[in-house]
Amino acid sequence: MVSLKGKDIISALDFTREEVEHLIRVAEQLRKEIDEKGILDYAKGKIMATVFLEPSTRTKLSFQYAMVRLGGTVIDFDVSTSSLAKGETDVDTLRIIDGYNPDVIVLRQKKPFFPREIAPIIKAPIISGGDGWNEHPTQALLDVYTIWRELGRLDDLTVGIMGDLKYGRTPSSLSYLLSKFKNITIYYIAPEPLQIREDVIKNIEGKVTYYKVNDVSQVIEKLDVLYVTRLQKERLPDPSLYEKLKGSYKIDKEFLSKFKKIPIIMHPLPRTWELDPSVDSLPQAKYFQQAQNGMYMRAALIKEVLGV
Amino acid sequence: MVSLKGKDIISALDFTREEVEHLIRVAEQLRKEIDEKGILDYAKGKIMATVFLEPSTRTKLSFQYAMVRLGGTVIDFDVSTSSLAKGETDVDTLRIIDGYNPDVIVLRQKKPFFPREIAPIIKAPIISGGDGWNEHPTQALLDVYTIWRELGRLDDLTVGIMGDLKYGRTPSSLSYLLSKFKNITIYYIAPEPLQIREDVIKNIEGKVTYYKVNDVSQVIEKLDVLYVTRLQKERLPDPSLYEKLKGSYKIDKEFLSKFKKIPIIMHPLPRTWELDPSVDSLPQAKYFQQAQNGMYMRAALIKEVLGV
Amino acid sequence: MVSLKGKDIISALDFTREEVEHLIRVAEQLRKEIDEKGILDYAKGKIMATVFLEPSTRTKLSFQYAMVRLGGTVIDFDVSTSSLAKGETDVDTLRIIDGYNPDVIVLRQKKPFFPREIAPIIKAPIISGGDGWNEHPTQALLDVYTIWRELGRLDDLTVGIMGDLKYGRTPSSLSYLLSKFKNITIYYIAPEPLQIREDVIKNIEGKVTYYKVNDVSQVIEKLDVLYVTRLQKERLPDPSLYEKLKGSYKIDKEFLSKFKKIPIIMHPLPRTWELDPSVDSLPQAKYFQQAQNGMYMRAALIKEVLGV
Repeated sequence: MVSLKGKDIISALDFTREEVEHLIRVAEQLRKEIDEKGILDYAKGKIMATVFLEPSTRTKLSFQYAMVRLGGTVIDFDVSTSSLAKGETDVDTLRIIDGYNPDVIVLRQKKPFFPREIAPIIKAPIISGGDGWNEHPTQALLDVYTIWRELGRLDDLTVGIMGDLKYGRTPSSLSYLLSKFKNITIYYIAPEPLQIREDVIKNIEGKVTYYKVNDVSQVIEKLDVLYVTRLQKERLPDPSLYEKLKGSYKIDKEFLSKFKKIPIIMHPLPRTWELDPSVDSLPQAKYFQQAQNGMYMRAALIKEVLGV
Repeated sequence: MVSLKGKDIISALDFTREEVEHLIRVAEQLRKEIDEKGILDYAKGKIMATVFLEPSTRTKLSFQYAMVRLGGTVIDFDVSTSSLAKGETDVDTLRIIDGYNPDVIVLRQKKPFFPREIAPIIKAPIISGGDGWNEHPTQALLDVYTIWRELGRLDDLTVGIMGDLKYGRTPSSLSYLLSKFKNITIYYIAPEPLQIREDVIKNIEGKVTYYKVNDVSQVIEKLDVLYVTRLQKERLPDPSLYEKLKGSYKIDKEFLSKFKKIPIIMHPLPRTWELDPSVDSLPQAKYFQQAQNGMYMRAALIKEVLGV
Repeated sequence: MVSLKGKDIISALDFTREEVEHLIRVAEQLRKEIDEKGILDYAKGKIMATVFLEPSTRTKLSFQYAMVRLGGTVIDFDVSTSSLAKGETDVDTLRIIDGYNPDVIVLRQKKPFFPREIAPIIKAPIISGGDGWNEHPTQALLDVYTIWRELGRLDDLTVGIMGDLKYGRTPSSLSYLLSKFKNITIYYIAPEPLQIREDVIKNIEGKVTYYKVNDVSQVIEKLDVLYVTRLQKERLPDPSLYEKLKGSYKIDKEFLSKFKKIPIIMHPLPRTWELDPSVDSLPQAKYFQQAQNGMYMRAALIKEVLGV
């Protein structure tokens, strides 16, 4: 039997196929209940601490909505007005929050692998909301949930992941989660300076078939899913790189209209220039549903981690 | 029968006299219930999203208190720590929040008429908390509620609106709401560069009697209400204009003591130099009550828009 | 009978010994109930306004957790996105919030003695969360609660308070609270420019035995408690003073290992260089427990002030 009760959720690599399928079932069930009743009471009396030490919209908000819809309470650590200005370390901040005994902590931090380091000294289960350029496991969960909802399967997929594969944390986690399924082909579509990192390749080697390509035109008709990502301006080692790479990949309606078959278009959002609003009206545009699915999937994850 | 259920609240022009009177009755009723019980349960299980893309104290806080006192839950979009820094458009931000299915969205945005543009693509009812220099309809509701509480009527009024009538959004909305009542005279009291905008005049022409004057001394004894407003420093096209206009109008106790009849003094707050704290002790000073009335009126509005 | 119902909590000087002992009993009782049930319902239907006009982590968060665990609701005034940018005074801000009728206001402000000034014009009871360099009464409550839990008594104590005694607000409040008990000796341990203020000495004169010393080595083996504090960088009149004083006092594991007897080590946190993480593993390190005790003590205080 699948149980995530009390577990830290830190890497998409840690999930089994059965756990992913279980979370999808729970998300679908919660979707029905939430859409009917608004606010449920699974998490009544439980407290979720949100600790976002990097900016966030969707992730923090969707965790907040998810917890509220489960009937629980959210207490946010507001980094903008906090004592970090006084020079406190993130480790101290987390130990103090942990001392207030929240039932779960959702943590975003700049430093890759920080959640793994801190988890052993924190009592509460930690759900990572992204650790720098490394991983974003709950994003990957909602991504595969979206693929499953749109295409009805998670085996036998050809997925193009396009954009900033080097500094982004969603391409890695999505690749890891897809690698749990059968007959997966991934095209990594990016200009050379943004291609997928070797540490990611090492983790999927032998589990998925993958290709690196520069031009989305070459492969788009083979794809079931085109997953577009933003250039991570804030993580580039050199700001001039942004100006050089800006616009080096872009999807708009006119471009897509050239092809006989258009895959579903996904994006973790926020988007900038790489995904034009002209795409929004196409039936293949699924990124707003994807964001919405995030609330239900995160509710499922919280419910399972709390064991309620 | 008056029903605001599911409606967007975007302009004071959209209200009928009957709707305003209905909201006042509901606000009075909720005042009694809230003062007795603290927190009610009309909005239990409902979620209000607050999305303030410009700074706010009173408006955001009073909506939060209003929703909490109705028994509902508020989820705030915290702009200061958000992904707007990553370049996301306000439209995307709102579509994503709308996807989390809040029961109502309270929106403040810099761009005039933005709520009108966005409303058709957002499922949740939108209550505007101010759109740049254009309008602030819920402020006007609490303004007329305050006038009604203090003077016992909304017909047959002479109101002076003083200060920054050009860049402010409260003079327009208050004028529009007053224009729904009978025998209204408005004196627009401002130095020339801050006089009331032509688009406002166009909307009230033929519905109220109005005059533009420069000096409050000439008209103050005719007024039932003197509504003072702050110079909108942050909206002036040229910062040097602020230094030029600073202090060009000002109310203090000494000034008021020269007149035989002092009208009730209102102000949407925050105030700076235009309304001196020496006025606070006068029985005519009603601006703190006005702020308090805002909580009850906004509770009434939320209740009606939710249809609970 | 001890009752704090409706009282302002502004200075540690205002407490009696009986009140402190009563609060400790309530904190211990609430600890049991909270650890068992998570969220209680003493404060159901009550609203706490948090108004932090200076940065805070622990204080604000622990009040939030405390109120939530009592079953109440917290509405935070978010200074970072507020109208203070528009030039509003803190007095106006507080009067407006008071008009929304919160059951209690937790206030942090830069100006020493500001809570005392404002309290008479604010209806809600005010709990000070620190007033500039002056006092931090609730910190002192959790400090003595921690001492009582660790040492089993509050009489017959020798306490060293070390660090920035001049610009810090915790040494004063802790001294005042200790002065309510019998046979107290305090060593003020600091370099001359950071020694305890004369206004503090005036308040404890004749009630405790005190000494000013420069070097902790001289006295450490006499101490029951060593209370370390951070250099208040943000309050120094001259920034160059920080560089001069940085590192002028410091506790680490190696230093402590030189002594035969090590007192319990406390710190109000956040810490910077003055308390090395190497100390964390010692059994005498009590600062994380101290932070945790803060949640229970603040819950006790809120409960008593609300009279629930």
